[in-house]
Formats: sequence, C-alpha cells, structure tokens
Amino acid sequence: MINLNIEFFGYFAAILTTLAFLPQLIKTFKTKKAEDVSLITLIMFLTGVLSWIIYGYKISSTPILIANVITFILNLLILIFKVTFAKK
Amino acid sequence: MINLNIEFFGYFAAILTTLAFLPQLIKTFKTKKAEDVSLITLIMFLTGVLSWIIYGYKISSTPILIANVITFILNLLILIFKVTFAKK
Repeated sequence: MINLNIEFFGYFAAILTTLAFLPQLIKTFKTKKAEDVSLITLIMFLTGVLSWIIYGYKISSTPILIANVITFILNLLILIFKVTFAKK
Repeated sequence: MINLNIEFFGYFAAILTTLAFLPQLIKTFKTKKAEDVSLITLIMFLTGVLSWIIYGYKISSTPILIANVITFILNLLILIFKVTFAKK
C-alpha cells in the first residue's frame, strides 16, 4: 500500500498555491492592466497571508511558512503592478 | 503581558484569506468580466487549495481546514463566472 506522507500534501499545496500567482503576475505585467482584479481582495489577501506566516511560524509548519512568504511577495508585486498601471 | 494565542493567528488568517475572495467574486459578478484574472492562476490555486484541505485534515488544523474549504468554493465560483462571462 502506498504510504502518502502528511508533509507531501503540505509541500504540494505550498508549491501550487505559491506558483499559482506567478501566471497572474506575468499576465498583469504583459497586459499592463489588472482592472478586473479586485484591489480589496489583494489587500485582504496580503493581510491574511501575513497572518498565516505568523501562524506557520508558531506551529512550526515549514510548508505553511515557505508557501506564504512567497505568496506574499508575488501578491505584493501584483498589487504594485495594478496600482502602477492604473495610474498611467 | 498580552498572551496572543497561536490559534488566534490561525483563525484571523483563515477569516482574511477566505473573505478576501468575496470582493473579487462580487466584482466579477457585477462587472460581468474577469478578463484580467488569470485562468491558469485560478486552476493552479484551486488544485493547491484542495491539497491544503487534505493537509489541514491530516495535521488536524481546524483553521487550515475551514479556510481552505470556503476559499475553494469562492474561487470555484470566480472560475465559473469568468468562463461563463467570457463565452457571452
């Protein structure tokens, strides 16, 4: 029987929910617009991700910690791009 | 000294990263377009969130579990709206 490790799901989830924002970042950078992307969503999501970082640190969960740090950076860049392109 | 409970950050994070997708869902529904929202991001994110659900269940983390189930539903609706509106 295949013994699927608990950490496998954590790392797989971490990789996917982290890399998921890369296509959005690339799309926003290429099209130079993110009008349809909600600003409130981005701000709330970034605040939430920051809280996941604290939680992941406190429960010593490496997948949660790594995933959320990179997710935070990618979404911050999407937010910066959105605001920058909207002004032009 | 204020003793900030570990679970507090988990639940706060859960609430924020869950409710964060509600403004996006409302915006997409109202504007009837999500052209700037990346389809690849949505698909990758949904797959990742599903893995977080399995991970949260396995490590018995209620905040991870609840947050990701609702996040999954909201993002699935955003995906459905995006695809539906794109066809019109």
